[in-house]
Amino acid sequence: MQNEKKDKNKRTIAYVEEVFRQIQEKPDVTDIMILNSKGNPIKTTMEMSAAIQYAGLYEILRDKVTMGLQKIDPKDDITMLRVRTTTNETLIVPDGKITVVAIQKARDRYHNE
Amino acid sequence: MQNEKKDKNKRTIAYVEEVFRQIQEKPDVTDIMILNSKGNPIKTTMEMSAAIQYAGLYEILRDKVTMGLQKIDPKDDITMLRVRTTTNETLIVPDGKITVVAIQKARDRYHNE
Repeated sequence: MQNEKKDKNKRTIAYVEEVFRQIQEKPDVTDIMILNSKGNPIKTTMEMSAAIQYAGLYEILRDKVTMGLQKIDPKDDITMLRVRTTTNETLIVPDGKITVVAIQKARDRYHNE
Repeated sequence: MQNEKKDKNKRTIAYVEEVFRQIQEKPDVTDIMILNSKGNPIKTTMEMSAAIQYAGLYEILRDKVTMGLQKIDPKDDITMLRVRTTTNETLIVPDGKITVVAIQKARDRYHNE
């Protein structure tokens, strides 16, 4: 795996472990998933069957948004993608060759309260 | 247009105008776009060529996320989708038959500062 030319943003196992640990410390996070460059989960708190199901969706989303942005402004980069539902909020962060996904409980601060 | 059966969440022109006005009051918002159920921009601050380009992307995103969530948890609903780039953040809110899109300046509160 010495193709360093393409791997400016290579992420080591130690890096992945550290990211995972830092996210786990956040109080509202219920699940974490880290995907490799092929979109496969390499570390996660989920059961494998759920992880694979989610991973497919995240990867499609990351790709669609990246391609869309490429058309609109090729100089801009995605830093975070959030999907908020009634029960939770999913944060998808493209980080070099990996994608970091964190799922946290939804807090309705923007609703009428 | 009296197909009320399907139109539980029908949005009137007055509703659209009011949503638009409320978003325009937010200080960091640079652009607003409201899409109808077909994904076409019905009211926007953008130039039409840009609006159409963006609208296509938002509609794809809304559809992908909705379909994905449907598979994962059919009882859950999307309340907001956010795409953050280095220069701005786009908020996409499915609201019944319309989709409300607001683009605001990115604030780097989650970065190292």
